[in-house]
Amino acid sequence: MLTLLVVLSTLSPQPSIESEIKSIQDKGLTELGAFTMLDELTAKIGPRLSGSPGAAKAVTWVEDKLKKMGATNVSQVPCMVPHWTRGRGENAVMDNHWKLSICALGGSEPTPNSGIEAEVVEVKSLKEAEELGDRGKGKIVFFNRPFDPTQAHTFAAYGGAVDQRGGGAIAAAKSGAVAVLVRSMTLATDDAPHTGAMRYGNGPRIPAAALGIQSAEKLSASIKRGRTKVRLVLNCKNLPDAPSANVLGEIKGSELPDEVIVMGGHLDSWDLGSGAHDDGAGVTQAMEALRLIKELGLKPKRTIRVVAWMNEENGLRGATSYLEYATKAKEKHFAAMESDSGGFMPRSFGVSEDKLEKVRAWEPYLKNFGIERFDAGGADADNGPLKAVGAILFALKPENQRYFDYHHSRNDTMDKVNPRELEMGAISMCVLAWLLSEKGDDLK
Amino acid sequence: MLTLLVVLSTLSPQPSIESEIKSIQDKGLTELGAFTMLDELTAKIGPRLSGSPGAAKAVTWVEDKLKKMGATNVSQVPCMVPHWTRGRGENAVMDNHWKLSICALGGSEPTPNSGIEAEVVEVKSLKEAEELGDRGKGKIVFFNRPFDPTQAHTFAAYGGAVDQRGGGAIAAAKSGAVAVLVRSMTLATDDAPHTGAMRYGNGPRIPAAALGIQSAEKLSASIKRGRTKVRLVLNCKNLPDAPSANVLGEIKGSELPDEVIVMGGHLDSWDLGSGAHDDGAGVTQAMEALRLIKELGLKPKRTIRVVAWMNEENGLRGATSYLEYATKAKEKHFAAMESDSGGFMPRSFGVSEDKLEKVRAWEPYLKNFGIERFDAGGADADNGPLKAVGAILFALKPENQRYFDYHHSRNDTMDKVNPRELEMGAISMCVLAWLLSEKGDDLK
Repeated sequence: MLTLLVVLSTLSPQPSIESEIKSIQDKGLTELGAFTMLDELTAKIGPRLSGSPGAAKAVTWVEDKLKKMGATNVSQVPCMVPHWTRGRGENAVMDNHWKLSICALGGSEPTPNSGIEAEVVEVKSLKEAEELGDRGKGKIVFFNRPFDPTQAHTFAAYGGAVDQRGGGAIAAAKSGAVAVLVRSMTLATDDAPHTGAMRYGNGPRIPAAALGIQSAEKLSASIKRGRTKVRLVLNCKNLPDAPSANVLGEIKGSELPDEVIVMGGHLDSWDLGSGAHDDGAGVTQAMEALRLIKELGLKPKRTIRVVAWMNEENGLRGATSYLEYATKAKEKHFAAMESDSGGFMPRSFGVSEDKLEKVRAWEPYLKNFGIERFDAGGADADNGPLKAVGAILFALKPENQRYFDYHHSRNDTMDKVNPRELEMGAISMCVLAWLLSEKGDDLK
Repeated sequence: MLTLLVVLSTLSPQPSIESEIKSIQDKGLTELGAFTMLDELTAKIGPRLSGSPGAAKAVTWVEDKLKKMGATNVSQVPCMVPHWTRGRGENAVMDNHWKLSICALGGSEPTPNSGIEAEVVEVKSLKEAEELGDRGKGKIVFFNRPFDPTQAHTFAAYGGAVDQRGGGAIAAAKSGAVAVLVRSMTLATDDAPHTGAMRYGNGPRIPAAALGIQSAEKLSASIKRGRTKVRLVLNCKNLPDAPSANVLGEIKGSELPDEVIVMGGHLDSWDLGSGAHDDGAGVTQAMEALRLIKELGLKPKRTIRVVAWMNEENGLRGATSYLEYATKAKEKHFAAMESDSGGFMPRSFGVSEDKLEKVRAWEPYLKNFGIERFDAGGADADNGPLKAVGAILFALKPENQRYFDYHHSRNDTMDKVNPRELEMGAISMCVLAWLLSEKGDDLK
């Protein structure tokens, strides 16, 4: 009897990669596990700004989930993170009577308790702000260059405008401005302000806030009619760095356990919405990818690891500390894949340019899930550093038109996520990780 | 001076097709005209079921819009359409106390005023219903085979379930059933019932209604516990055919005016939502495509025509009458393009198989707008018949995951439409029409 079984098992054919991928598809689309997890993360914990209680809870939540799904080596990779809080009661009033919709930019200093009241001068670029000279002195500088709507890809429109948010305070301070207001980074036409990181240089650290689009239009129209004053009150604070951590968990490889395939997203989010698309989506997609492999009983040749990075939004400390950890542990990172462009329907994978030709042979495996092709460019913010330890980089690129409608605003919430579109991203990551594990030598 | 101008104009290079396409992109993405028109159509007129006052208003609305944008040959192609009305007060109650969420299927006969009360028997297929025999007699047959969630493409899932809606009443009547309830054609998990066309054969014309998904689950669970009765009240009516019309308008070709390129969608919709995605989107995308060409001053070589077809949902009378019109007029139809899969981000164009190889050379022109490729299969419901007059068929294929969340239900409303995604479809149609007009010989 035993002999017979051994013979049968020897005779039974290896499952094909196609049938394994089909089993991933069937289980993923039936169970929609990424959505269930993201729903729990956003409902139970909500926003997860670095250093906040939400971020700390999220670290524990990911650890628990990974343990429960049977991942091994579940652990934290600690890091110190910037700790900025918004405070309560931020507001802006134009000409003593018109309330503008604003939010402090991440990292901004507060105004005095009584606020800053000053005349507003509108500019369209950092250069224009720097060249204001005396005309900027004592003023609030208002950066109002919109997204270029003619860009087909919204990330290109973002890239063409976001310097105002990141560098506006530095540029305006050079002309003696006392604060900056920045048109929100969005193509939406509602009035929700969109926060995001800003920087200071060596000059004065002047307060900086984002304006909702309707408020920006209103302010601009008012300035065109003559002098306009705004009183701005921000109650944010920069506190000492706080302890936090990345979380990882994995399935050990059966043949090449030392070759690690990382897949992940960032666990921190801005504080206004619940970080559903940015980037609860990426984290729960990676977790779902691991869950699918685990529960299907697939045994990867290489080690497949989930990493939930901390502090992508305002410091990248998690990515830095994970690289240090990987370097110190002398782990070979075969590949590192990130999903940080929203939980929308997948369209392509970016990949390290030198592997593009070879990886294209895998396109047929991924087409079902919306992945039409591989394109050059696999580095996202968190996986990018892992090039230093040899990783082939992959970035999931979903449909992008809706992303900046929600990004960094109160509108980045669960009701904007479609369960199947989110799962298609998880399945894409799972299938790519599986291909890397089983057929990774194809890329050598 | 005149001489100089003539010389200059002779010397000025022809604008390249690339620069023309870029001008279409820039104008489209800046003005988002499809969204403005669809917003007006859905807000001012709303649902447009064939034979309804809404459908009649919509015909006039399209005519007016086309005239205002300077189209020529703006006219109606009349047709008689089925005239079915839902009436008020339709409802279903399970076991005398539990309200089920239902809607009559399009074309259904009503119940008596007092309703039909009967025990419910659940089946998963037409065959099972036909084979009920005596067990179906006097019963309400409940078709509850869900969409297959493992299908990556939702239209495949729809195709695998919709026979229950279309043919359920015929099959159940064979076993002597008195009415049918059909699980809604959707992957969504809310309780909105989804209507759609149903047919009768030569047997008894028994009333037929769709059940919301939660109601279907509830009813199924109740049946599993024992006998379950439902009282169904439908107040719908089949009235005599009513006069209606397709609408067309065009830009006459400068060199090949007799070669017509049709682009369109269907103007009628079901009565529950406002027919935003199905198919106000397709109609307004085609109108926007014409507007872009017109306002950019582009002069097509071939005639580019918008057709807003009537009665796609429950009869296809518009498509039939348009084919008759085209045949009678001996018009050469060079190509016919339809958008009837929702106003989501474009992904591909289906095309008549014999032209697939040649048209692939145009893919680079369309990539910016989400069109990754041409695939075999250009026939949609309304453009399909035009194969008979020689047209190369094209069908716009947008992202499909969200489509059946809204399709034929009260949720098919404007808030589900993203302005840029809708416009990307309009631009894709415009660019394809322009390529067909200017470079159509490439396909010969």
